[in-house]
Amino acid sequence: MITVALDTMGSDGGAKPLVEGAAWLSREDGDLSVILVGEEPVLSEHLAELRYDPARLSVVHAEGAVSMEDKPGDALDARPDCSVLTAARLVAEGEADALVSAGNTGAVILAASRTFERLPGIRRGALAAVYPTEQRHGPRQDPFALMLDVGATTHCSAQDLVGFAVMGSAYSRIISDIERPRVALLSNGTEPTKGTPIIVEAHRMLTNHRAVNFVGNVEGLDIPRGTVDVVICDGFLGNVVLKMLEGVSEVVADLARDAYARKFLWKMGLTMLSQGLRQIRTMTDWKQYGGAPVLGFDHVVIKAHGRSNARAVRNALKVAAKAVERGLAQEIASGLTG
Amino acid sequence: MITVALDTMGSDGGAKPLVEGAAWLSREDGDLSVILVGEEPVLSEHLAELRYDPARLSVVHAEGAVSMEDKPGDALDARPDCSVLTAARLVAEGEADALVSAGNTGAVILAASRTFERLPGIRRGALAAVYPTEQRHGPRQDPFALMLDVGATTHCSAQDLVGFAVMGSAYSRIISDIERPRVALLSNGTEPTKGTPIIVEAHRMLTNHRAVNFVGNVEGLDIPRGTVDVVICDGFLGNVVLKMLEGVSEVVADLARDAYARKFLWKMGLTMLSQGLRQIRTMTDWKQYGGAPVLGFDHVVIKAHGRSNARAVRNALKVAAKAVERGLAQEIASGLTG
Repeated sequence: MITVALDTMGSDGGAKPLVEGAAWLSREDGDLSVILVGEEPVLSEHLAELRYDPARLSVVHAEGAVSMEDKPGDALDARPDCSVLTAARLVAEGEADALVSAGNTGAVILAASRTFERLPGIRRGALAAVYPTEQRHGPRQDPFALMLDVGATTHCSAQDLVGFAVMGSAYSRIISDIERPRVALLSNGTEPTKGTPIIVEAHRMLTNHRAVNFVGNVEGLDIPRGTVDVVICDGFLGNVVLKMLEGVSEVVADLARDAYARKFLWKMGLTMLSQGLRQIRTMTDWKQYGGAPVLGFDHVVIKAHGRSNARAVRNALKVAAKAVERGLAQEIASGLTG
Repeated sequence: MITVALDTMGSDGGAKPLVEGAAWLSREDGDLSVILVGEEPVLSEHLAELRYDPARLSVVHAEGAVSMEDKPGDALDARPDCSVLTAARLVAEGEADALVSAGNTGAVILAASRTFERLPGIRRGALAAVYPTEQRHGPRQDPFALMLDVGATTHCSAQDLVGFAVMGSAYSRIISDIERPRVALLSNGTEPTKGTPIIVEAHRMLTNHRAVNFVGNVEGLDIPRGTVDVVICDGFLGNVVLKMLEGVSEVVADLARDAYARKFLWKMGLTMLSQGLRQIRTMTDWKQYGGAPVLGFDHVVIKAHGRSNARAVRNALKVAAKAVERGLAQEIASGLTG
């Protein structure tokens, strides 16, 4: 039985969708149980309205939440028994095998960094994002690729980027079942000499790397196309790129809404096209993929989107369990050493 | 009379659309003449088939072109009388007032850098790109904003970014008639402390800058939205962002094409929606805005897209003339000094 500690506080929709997602999962077949971590009275109230398997769903009380607006360091200092730290401690102490949270991203990364051990050779953690692409990936033909870091480490050394490549490669292999994921550095040209000195150095270090199927540099064009399975960049660039994808998705949705409001013929056209537009929105709406792994630690950490619904929470919990079951941390460690 | 030297070699479509654009312009009202620079026999052959005003269109012969695949430095060294260098010399020697080229971008920037003087306080030139946005800008409600640098200077100092802000602000004021263009730094958060140390320092230097209406940092989300009129970043980040916008445009077009091919109902829907889709494609197809200014020199330089048609060439020539007429270089210089 794999147990996931679910931080139920601080997300945009409150504890309800998180409890619903966990309750749903407890009724499904599977070797997975969940510990809901948060305000016990609130959690019990939600649970009273739901069907769930009490053998696979329990509650641990925590005092205090980190809000989306809080500065992570200050909030964790001020509230040492808050839900995300309590959930992380349950994992560190062996009561649970993985941490899932839909709260403040910085606080999740910091809670992991303060509570877990970093893997040998990893200086700082990375947040990876699954994002939609035109090309498909792996045996299941997934329409998305992985990018890291997207915000955990703003300033990266070449060694950090190499560590991200090993971690992203292991995650893609384990979660997407891609045997030899194609990994590339994001740069301003495909030649090995292109980019900052740090990127050029990382390119040199990754060439012929034992544990990474490194295919060289990719450019901005290749991000929406999805030319490779794993895109490596520093957290500054990854943050700009990911938010841009989010912005493009919003703009496409706005334009479609405008068109809809304006003209009857357009309404007819849009109704007929709804399936096609849904596909475009699916492609551009990275949020629906929910869980983003925080990599670099000796335990599995999945950050679900702050606006996750019950289905997204359930998916994030399942991804966490899969990563534990298939030995993600060990897979990364073996790619980093010897 | 303002005279523009037009480099007619090395673009994707050959000299023909360039000659057509210049011939078209010569027949329109306006105080503008063009010198076509390139292989005289080829240019004469094209001109023989076109109507144009010979008082406003002349030819200067040049030997050799720089192709899109050439390494700019090597090509300019090997072919000192190639069309882009010949055109730049005509401007430096006062025979023409501005340079327009649809050739190899790196070669245009390098030709400017070798032939023109840098403005005082500017260490290296910047390539600016006009890109489509959801929000509109200025008195003409233009659906696009300006971003620089997008590829001329990969590694920038804080001082370079401040120079780009002054140059972008002057260009936006002169070409888009925006009296006080809103200028922002692209970063991974809006707080003044966000970003690399160079961005943090540039933020400090731009706060209360006399010649720039600096509104702080913007994030990736703000690029497609178009929250500000001018976005400032280093050439590495700008290159990735611009190519990503191009990639998104391609993917949207591909999806629409796929949908069209697949289903009759979709075809009907798409036909009805064609105006709406055109709007989306217009929004995402930055290429149609054609001319991108190369800034930082004592002469006006406009890089037209390599795939420019006659209309795009005509627009680039008109933008170049407008920049000369309104004193772009002087406007930038006055923002940089005193």
